[in-house]
Amino acid sequence: MECLADVGWNGSTVAVVAERAGVTRGAAQHHFRTREDLFTAAVEHVAAERLAAVLAHVRELPPPGPERTEAVVDMIVRLYTGPLFRAALHLWVAAATEEPLRERIVSLENHVGREAHRAAVGCLGADESAAGVRETVQATLDLARGLGLANLLTDDGPRRAGIVRQWSRLLDAALAAGEPPAAP
Amino acid sequence: MECLADVGWNGSTVAVVAERAGVTRGAAQHHFRTREDLFTAAVEHVAAERLAAVLAHVRELPPPGPERTEAVVDMIVRLYTGPLFRAALHLWVAAATEEPLRERIVSLENHVGREAHRAAVGCLGADESAAGVRETVQATLDLARGLGLANLLTDDGPRRAGIVRQWSRLLDAALAAGEPPAAP
Repeated sequence: MECLADVGWNGSTVAVVAERAGVTRGAAQHHFRTREDLFTAAVEHVAAERLAAVLAHVRELPPPGPERTEAVVDMIVRLYTGPLFRAALHLWVAAATEEPLRERIVSLENHVGREAHRAAVGCLGADESAAGVRETVQATLDLARGLGLANLLTDDGPRRAGIVRQWSRLLDAALAAGEPPAAP
Repeated sequence: MECLADVGWNGSTVAVVAERAGVTRGAAQHHFRTREDLFTAAVEHVAAERLAAVLAHVRELPPPGPERTEAVVDMIVRLYTGPLFRAALHLWVAAATEEPLRERIVSLENHVGREAHRAAVGCLGADESAAGVRETVQATLDLARGLGLANLLTDDGPRRAGIVRQWSRLLDAALAAGEPPAAP
């Protein structure tokens, strides 16, 4: 993953990864026949680990209310602005022009996206049977993805903090089904 | 731009572009010394053209209200889910690992981002002096970017339509400064 984030898909050959990992190229190829196999497995593994790490802290979240909503949005946005997203972005964009990679990444993305959505719904205590709630949660994940992209070339932290705060306020009000947000 | 969208940054040499454009490589290099120059200029030109094309239709937007808000969100999201965004994405990701490209793309992005923000504020009739409004408009642009990314490998249109509708509803309510949205 470090390799992808540092030098992109083109620089990330199996040989380069093997050298960084301190194993022989033969050993790497014994476990992963192609670099598509290697990197798809890496993204899937790290994404699952990150999500599990996030979910392990769910009990430390504030009780339901605006503070919890902001903590959850912040948590989601962090998932999409860290080194994992940066590495995944290189894979996605490479997959747009490389057919053997595309199929793998589409199925990986479906899987990771579903898990992230489920985790967000759970943490937010969102009732998806209410009209618009599913789309509101999905919009939160898409917003996080957009913020991750904005963070690729420059440190977008200060601008992002204001957006996370404001969206959390709107999201909390929307999830409270029309009730106005509590005064700050 | 077609070349970037089709074959990515690595495949997009000046020679490949020149051949597609039906000019000699020498002629292309006479106008743009490096491929960084060529592609930065192309993205800037097409982005300005797209934005101008969008703004030319502002008078056809519905009058202020929920319908106009949805039309504007739809317009913004279209800017970020079309071929221009796809091409720009290849440049952004290449810029993350190529120093000579990074500086150019950062300044290009700042410029294009500012113009898009200004256009969105104008079309939405948003009052940025009100608390949170600036961040709400920025969030709309970041959401559009995230939706553009989600559309890179598969046709995300149907899912996106639901998100655009729901976001528009929330945005319209937020811009109406706490007033509940009109009944659908």
